[in-house]
This record gives sequence, structure tokens and C-alpha cells, in this order.
Amino acid sequence: MDYFLAVDIGGTQMRAACYAENNQIPSTIQRIYTQGSDGTPLDRLNHLLESIWPEGHVAGVGVAAPGPLDPYQGIVIEAPNIAGWVNLPLKCHLQDRFKVPIALGNDANLAALGEWKYGAGRGYHHLVYITVSTGIGGGVITDDRLLLGERGLAAELGHVTILPDGPICSCGQPGHVEALASGPALAKWAQGEIQKGAASILPADQKITAKDVGEAALKGDALAIAALSRAGYYLGLALANYCQIFNPSVFIIGGGVSKPGPYLFDPLKASLREHVMSPDYLKNLTITQAALGDEVGLMGALALAHSIV
Amino acid sequence: MDYFLAVDIGGTQMRAACYAENNQIPSTIQRIYTQGSDGTPLDRLNHLLESIWPEGHVAGVGVAAPGPLDPYQGIVIEAPNIAGWVNLPLKCHLQDRFKVPIALGNDANLAALGEWKYGAGRGYHHLVYITVSTGIGGGVITDDRLLLGERGLAAELGHVTILPDGPICSCGQPGHVEALASGPALAKWAQGEIQKGAASILPADQKITAKDVGEAALKGDALAIAALSRAGYYLGLALANYCQIFNPSVFIIGGGVSKPGPYLFDPLKASLREHVMSPDYLKNLTITQAALGDEVGLMGALALAHSIV
Repeated sequence: MDYFLAVDIGGTQMRAACYAENNQIPSTIQRIYTQGSDGTPLDRLNHLLESIWPEGHVAGVGVAAPGPLDPYQGIVIEAPNIAGWVNLPLKCHLQDRFKVPIALGNDANLAALGEWKYGAGRGYHHLVYITVSTGIGGGVITDDRLLLGERGLAAELGHVTILPDGPICSCGQPGHVEALASGPALAKWAQGEIQKGAASILPADQKITAKDVGEAALKGDALAIAALSRAGYYLGLALANYCQIFNPSVFIIGGGVSKPGPYLFDPLKASLREHVMSPDYLKNLTITQAALGDEVGLMGALALAHSIV
Repeated sequence: MDYFLAVDIGGTQMRAACYAENNQIPSTIQRIYTQGSDGTPLDRLNHLLESIWPEGHVAGVGVAAPGPLDPYQGIVIEAPNIAGWVNLPLKCHLQDRFKVPIALGNDANLAALGEWKYGAGRGYHHLVYITVSTGIGGGVITDDRLLLGERGLAAELGHVTILPDGPICSCGQPGHVEALASGPALAKWAQGEIQKGAASILPADQKITAKDVGEAALKGDALAIAALSRAGYYLGLALANYCQIFNPSVFIIGGGVSKPGPYLFDPLKASLREHVMSPDYLKNLTITQAALGDEVGLMGALALAHSIV
């Protein structure tokens, strides 16, 4: 029996799981902090993999990592929040140590792959996945293949200018989708409105988060609903652009900010309908929430592990 | 010996050419007006094809047509400026009549395919083609394959909102790249500035075209140079978006508006450098003018004809 291993590396935690062939339920799963006093993040990753290594034959290991990376060479270009992970040849390191085929992918790209193979994207051939969280990431499947581009840096769907005189993005550029519709962006907008005197159950005197805004919206708070509506408006405008660019058959929206459901999705869909250049793009178009939840990173890495053997 | 036929249909003219196997120089080429008193555009197309039909075996016919179309079914959804070409099953019509394999493609998509196979894009695996003319069209090759999307409507790279409070596009949406940087858009901007009193050798009292603006720029007219510079700025911003979306290795810019060269390209490149989120996208990135000129439609249709056999 062959086994496939999946690893999902984040700035705070990393998780690894072992799957028997043809199985999507892990036989073993482990989670540790990415950084700690006993060893570098790479040491910790090695130990994590050893802790789940099965008795049988490992056919492949898929690794999801954050930030820009080169999936062809298996090099982490720069992992945000992981000290020292700059131009790290992670694939070589792991192959040297474990002597099995390893593949590396950007976490948002692999989330798209995971949703396509195991989640809300099954059966579709042209898929656009967007995760709305602290940042906005993306992944695209066109004609049943993951879009990577020349150096594996494609599908940065949160980093596209849609409002040149808009707020500055985390990447330093003005008016990106991420600067208008990410969790921190919508919380900041709500906070600014409260400071200008808008009525809300959200506190005026302490920092609020997108989660706070989502909870307030569920309680009927008009300002919180407006903040999600504004984010949905800009996401819908971006999705209209992606209709014209990719002509997908499904949009999958993941990430924590999508959890308040209709408060984000209704204005998003209205804005998409308003901005799309032709109703032809909306025919048979599905817009749906991601299905894999917190498992999406592992499932994407599992799909990648299967793709290399 | 096999022959391949290529047809390039426009609102004004249509051209057809016959190529012997492995040849990129046509053995026959004919051009006629698309519309006339003797027969419908479809009748005229039939006669055009008959006029270049060779003695030998025809392996395939590629047809480039304007406007949205379904390349999978071979249906013209709506050809601008060709009366009656709405939901026209052109592929079926031509296959019934000529009994050879026919394929249909959008003209901008096929221009990308033509430049990739025969022109400025040879040897690249990830290509973004933009034609800047009366409108702005696009075509994308990712991983050596033409991006089509679910219904063949992808790569409308001129119809992407980059300035929501900007001018209205020909498609009715605000702030599309086409409304900011197409030939009519830059001529209209120049005309507006002249009417507001700007000094220029361009006439204040008659309609000016992008060609007039290009010629005035070559003579050193500051307003004409500013008009091209403004178009280049918005094109560069759009190209930065396309870097982050597609991570291409080459941008190819075609169409009449690209002819004044550096007056458009220098500000375009400066704007791209300014707006790209990371210099990683610019490493080994080529930005070049299209190589096939007026032949690009036929060459794209020829590439399509080869792809179906």
C-alpha cells in the first residue's frame, strides 16, 4: 500500500497528515507551532514529518507554504512571519532527508487545487478560488490545470488595482482588492466610520477585527452590515474583472471573512451582476463558499502529492 | 501535399489565404469587402473561400472572427458591424459546404496564438498579448495553451475595470482599460484638452483620431505626447495587474496605437515598474511590439488550422 503525506505550513502553526492510498481521511495528523525555542522552523518541520511517517511506502509528499515561492524549483522565496525562510530550497532539503518525491506549492494555489479535486470545485474545468482573510489570495484552474505562470507567481488575485486612489495595500501598492475587502481592510473602514460618529454596537475605543464585524452584522448592526457590504461590492467588481479575464464556471470564496455568508455574498453578487460586461458570463456560473474549511491547506497539499506520482 | 486555409473576418473586409504544408507564405491570398449588394456576408465568405481553394487536399481551415464567439461550438455570438451575424453557427455552415475540418476563434485570441507560433512570442510559454486599436483586445497563452475559459469568452483584457470613476467604455461599464487607453479614448482626451485651451498643432475645430495624435507626437507636439503618455500610464497599470494575475514571460503589444513606439512604450514601462507589486515579476520579462503587423489575423487563423489536424 502507498501512502501520501500532506504538509500545511503557516506562520503560527504547521500541520502534517498521512493518507493511505485512495483515502481522503488521514490515518495520522499532527500539528505543532512553526517557531519555538527547540530548533529552527526547518528542524521542527523535519520532526513533524518523522512523527507521522508511516511504516509502508511513501509515494509522495505535498507541501503548502505561504508567500511567494517557486513551485518548479521548490524554493520558498520569502515566507511571511517565518524567520530565515528567504530563498530556502525546501524541496531539496526534504528530498535529501526523506528520499521520496516532494512538491511545493503556494498555499492559496493549493487551496484552489484542493477545492477543485475534493471540495466545492469538483467537476468544474474553469475555477477561480479567492480566500478572503488577513490578506486576499487566489488560485485558478483553467482547462483542468493550475495556473502558475513563468515563475509560479500567478493568481495573486488580491493584488490587482481596482481603485488607483484607494487605500494602500499591505504590499505597498494603492487600491488593490486586498486593501479594500480583506478582513483588516473592512475592520479598519468600520473603525474609521465609528470614529467619525457612526452608530454601532462595535466599540469606539478599542481595535476591532473582521470577526467582530461579522458577529455584529449577525446581530443586525447596520454599520457592520455596511462594512461587509462595501467589501462585497469591491469583491464583486473584482469578480466581474475575473469573469472577463478567465470566463470561469465557478467562483469559490473561502477564508474567515466569507463566514458571515449573505452579508458578504448578497452585495458581492449584486456588484458582480452590475459590473460584468455581458450576461453571457453569468450563464451557468456558480458562486459558492469553499467546502473544505480549515482542511483546505492539507487537502491541497494532498492533491499536489498525488499529482507528482 | 496538404494545404491549410486561413480566413480573417472583419467588419469591413475579409481576407483568406492558402498555405502549402509547412509554409508560412501563402500560395494564394484574396481580400474582399465583408458587405456588399451581391449576397450576404456568409455568401461572400463562401465565394472568397472558393476563390482560393487549392487543387490538392485541404487538411483544415482556421477562421478568425471579431466579437464574442464560442470556439468550442464554432458559433459567432455577435459580430460587431456584420449585420445578421448573431448566434451564427459558422463552423457548421462551412463544414457542411466544404467538407473539411473547420475551427473558429476570436480574432484577438488568435492574434495571440499567431504571435506565439510565428511572431514575437516564439519560444515563450507564458504570453500576454494586447492589441490597442479602436478597442483593446487580448489573448493569453499559459503553459503553451490558449486561455479560452468555460465558453471561450476569456482574455477580454481591455474590459477590466481599473478606474471605477473613469470614463464609460464602449461596452457600457465604467473605467475599463479600453475606455482609458484605446485609440478613440486617447484622441477624445486630447480633443477635450484642446477644447479646454491646451496648445497643440492638432486642430481644435475638427474630429481627431489616434493616428493624428501619433503623427503630432512624432512632430514633438506636447499635448499629443501627453495623450500617448496617459494611455501608456493606464496600460502599464493594467500590465502590472496582468503580471500578478498571469506571471507571463512576455507582453506583446499590437494594434495601430502601438505604432508611435516610445511615446507609448516608455510611459507604459515606467507605469508597469511603478505598479508591479514585486520586482520578481520583472525578472526576464520581455515587453515588445507585435511582429506580424496586418498579417496577424491570418497567421493566427493558420495556427488554429494547424492545431485541429
